[in-house]
Amino acid sequence: MLIDPRRIKHCRHCGRPVDYRIPADDNRERAVCDGCGTIHYENPLNVVGTLPVWGEQVLLCKRAIEPRYGLWTLPAGFMELGETVADGALRETVEEAGAKVELEGLLTLLNVVRVGQVHLFYRARMLDTTLDPGPESLDARLFHEHEIPWDEIAFRTVRETLRHYFDCRRSGNGYPLHLADIG
Amino acid sequence: MLIDPRRIKHCRHCGRPVDYRIPADDNRERAVCDGCGTIHYENPLNVVGTLPVWGEQVLLCKRAIEPRYGLWTLPAGFMELGETVADGALRETVEEAGAKVELEGLLTLLNVVRVGQVHLFYRARMLDTTLDPGPESLDARLFHEHEIPWDEIAFRTVRETLRHYFDCRRSGNGYPLHLADIG
Repeated sequence: MLIDPRRIKHCRHCGRPVDYRIPADDNRERAVCDGCGTIHYENPLNVVGTLPVWGEQVLLCKRAIEPRYGLWTLPAGFMELGETVADGALRETVEEAGAKVELEGLLTLLNVVRVGQVHLFYRARMLDTTLDPGPESLDARLFHEHEIPWDEIAFRTVRETLRHYFDCRRSGNGYPLHLADIG
Repeated sequence: MLIDPRRIKHCRHCGRPVDYRIPADDNRERAVCDGCGTIHYENPLNVVGTLPVWGEQVLLCKRAIEPRYGLWTLPAGFMELGETVADGALRETVEEAGAKVELEGLLTLLNVVRVGQVHLFYRARMLDTTLDPGPESLDARLFHEHEIPWDEIAFRTVRETLRHYFDCRRSGNGYPLHLADIG
């Protein structure tokens, strides 16, 4: 899942081959079309999700897709055009777990520079225990802290978000936003 | 600056014309290439910046570029691949104002759904008053609160970030993250 450094081969606008170089008034290499002049920018993407909580338990989903097939994760996915971070986090929670939740605070903002992503997780209160895992999940179930399969967590940002949540819960001082960089 | 709904005309990989439709296992329209099978995803982008503070004053830059030429803004721009939110915010502060700052907390996270953007501003402490506006700024200077040109602020996210900062400063209770949606 590393970023392919020159993945744009053809112009989005006219279809001609692009050339990677630094445009005038810029300081980074971009895919430039010498045919129509289009400059193609590539920027980091947001992955948005939730940590759904039911009493003492938290919800995890078992991945039915690659990467990390069969490992456990929090409901999350790429933020889409037309939605806020919160909208996207809620949508992913429904799509991947079929869980009904109410968002509480933003819990983590994690930079994953290596893959050009920013992961944002909200703490969410489950409204009931109805679950209906979507096609991207093999299973969705509730875990007490001592049951969390720490060695079978799909992504470091998910592990970091779970750790931060349980640390905050133990401390009893609320759930401040945790910002970190995942190497 | 609204999102052009079907701006991808040709395949990034092979250059053939794309077709907008909902791919199998998806629920949104994407630009699909029937030649090589590439699916082109388009997602919101992060705009990252700072609110630089020197004592009682804050730094604003006068825009030398469209949109909003001649209006005042905070140093900010599109987050680039290879950097964190904080890296990008620092880079833009140097590029647009030539200011030396140290980041403090994340101050605002503002969804601008209409243009497919998330704006993130850090509070930053200026290390000295040396300024060197870059080519995108006509001017960069310090303002006391009563001097802020509220009617000549370039973007609603900048106005919201300035308002939140001054509200927090008056309250004396720190600078919690402010999340909001800009309609």
